[in-house]
Amino acid sequence: MGVVVDLNGERDKKPSLESLTALVADDLKAANELIVQRMHSPVALIPQLAGHIVAAGGKRLRPVLTLASSRLCGYEGKRHIALATSVEFIHTATLLHDDVVDHSELRRGMATANSLWGNKTSVLVGDFLLARAFELMVEDGSLEVLDILSHASAVISEGEVAQLITANDTETSESAYMEVIKAKTAQLFAAACQIGAVVADRPKVEREALESYGMNLGIAFQLIDDVLDYSAKQTTLGKTVGDDFAEGKITLPLVLAFRRGTEEERTFWRRTVEDLDQKEGDLDTAIEMMTRYGSLDDTVTRARHYGAIARDALGIFEDGPEKSAMLDLVDFSIQRAY
Amino acid sequence: MGVVVDLNGERDKKPSLESLTALVADDLKAANELIVQRMHSPVALIPQLAGHIVAAGGKRLRPVLTLASSRLCGYEGKRHIALATSVEFIHTATLLHDDVVDHSELRRGMATANSLWGNKTSVLVGDFLLARAFELMVEDGSLEVLDILSHASAVISEGEVAQLITANDTETSESAYMEVIKAKTAQLFAAACQIGAVVADRPKVEREALESYGMNLGIAFQLIDDVLDYSAKQTTLGKTVGDDFAEGKITLPLVLAFRRGTEEERTFWRRTVEDLDQKEGDLDTAIEMMTRYGSLDDTVTRARHYGAIARDALGIFEDGPEKSAMLDLVDFSIQRAY
Repeated sequence: MGVVVDLNGERDKKPSLESLTALVADDLKAANELIVQRMHSPVALIPQLAGHIVAAGGKRLRPVLTLASSRLCGYEGKRHIALATSVEFIHTATLLHDDVVDHSELRRGMATANSLWGNKTSVLVGDFLLARAFELMVEDGSLEVLDILSHASAVISEGEVAQLITANDTETSESAYMEVIKAKTAQLFAAACQIGAVVADRPKVEREALESYGMNLGIAFQLIDDVLDYSAKQTTLGKTVGDDFAEGKITLPLVLAFRRGTEEERTFWRRTVEDLDQKEGDLDTAIEMMTRYGSLDDTVTRARHYGAIARDALGIFEDGPEKSAMLDLVDFSIQRAY
Repeated sequence: MGVVVDLNGERDKKPSLESLTALVADDLKAANELIVQRMHSPVALIPQLAGHIVAAGGKRLRPVLTLASSRLCGYEGKRHIALATSVEFIHTATLLHDDVVDHSELRRGMATANSLWGNKTSVLVGDFLLARAFELMVEDGSLEVLDILSHASAVISEGEVAQLITANDTETSESAYMEVIKAKTAQLFAAACQIGAVVADRPKVEREALESYGMNLGIAFQLIDDVLDYSAKQTTLGKTVGDDFAEGKITLPLVLAFRRGTEEERTFWRRTVEDLDQKEGDLDTAIEMMTRYGSLDDTVTRARHYGAIARDALGIFEDGPEKSAMLDLVDFSIQRAY
């Protein structure tokens, strides 16, 4: 432990994430090298654009989960490196298409690929990375992994379309919202973790435990992301506070505040989020209401619930540094809110 | 033959395409049913949009190639049906993203999905169909097929990005253009055909013969499409003449006309195609120049060259109804120009 990992020049100050990335540092270095190598194409624009988003950093959380889960299962080979790369490519493809769909201009504090190279290129390079992800899996040769990740890809796009429909709808229910984030975010976390048990050829019970860990960690992670978008803390994370609000994006804090509010307050939400008719001070009003109704705190409480399930899912594994760091990751994911 | 096949209510008058679709009619019916079944999703917008483009008809040329190639190789099982469906999903996903990238409003004479449901939904449903295509392949379980189609997908998106770069560039060379259509169109034809030899477990020489047949047929097919876009014949095919010109799309007839033209004529091409500054009568002028320099005829001649290679590739197969219909398809693809 205690090792400080320099992740593409971005130094993460959270000890609990660091402990996990430090554990898989060598594997992660190999995966990062493979990422650069496999995004190569004679069409120079492809590595240029893909390199922008991949180099933009990010925590490499999903590939780290694949690497750590493999080690947790006692795997000692090298297959998990290409598969972690594949997972990161699927994630990156999703981000590229997401930013096009959301017309986003900033991601992690940097200009998005679509704002620099245009929507067209982002759509097509996203397709390319998704195809590359499948090529990597095919080279690995496990139909079980292919099954997990092709299914995850289908579920992710289903979730994206579902979100498009509920977008800006203030009457979205908590359960409808939960279905969307399970599909959009948590499914890939679950897939990334499951792969560890597959490469290590571990019994079904371990595969399911890792699936549950990933799924519930993913939900907790997304819920805290939702909270951070209304929290001053956010400014230190390279995002702008209020992005979700500005885009009229429905997240759990908003779902709860809308349902707990008066009819007059609901009129406010409809104007700002459905009609996107926003004035100065509206974001402050939104945060004030979310605070007053406890919808930010309660979203954190919901996240804790999923975090607890994720922790328990690892119960069947023997104690060791990987398990301990993966448990820490759950806590880190939630503590980001403070 | 002489059997008349009703293809989703669209009756194709070309006897030579009919002979091939008639040969695989039962398999194609099964594939069409599987297409509808596997585009299903609890998110209703997905089958709605996907159904629009899939039902829009089209010739189902790529799945028909998979079905016919399988039969040509003596295959008697059912695997080729799911794989033909997978090929059609990859193709459909590409069309959806293509129409977004090209801002197309019409496809086969009908409103495009992006013009009806918006770019966002088209991008995401395209992703969904691509993921579904991989799910179908994984269910089939052949890593060889997965290898062929994941590689084809990567090459297609590479070709799309390459085309984005050369788009509107009147100085595009013939060879650069040929590389683009090989990647964008012919690669999937080649993959669709190769699959036949894989499911039938035929030797490498047959797989390579079918790959060559598909690749060269695909090139010939695309070149004739390029010609049709400047030909009055086009109006009977449900497209508008001059779409490529209106979009400033570089195709071989234009590449040849530009290179054969005077400096004054090149100024015309730069204004209309690069700057997209088009006036009434410009399309007629373009067609007049293409005709005068023989660039339409010569594109057909180039297509014949690839068609001849495609025909010869089938030489190693024994004569029979499938081979004969696949040879006819080459002729049909080229004769469309007249």
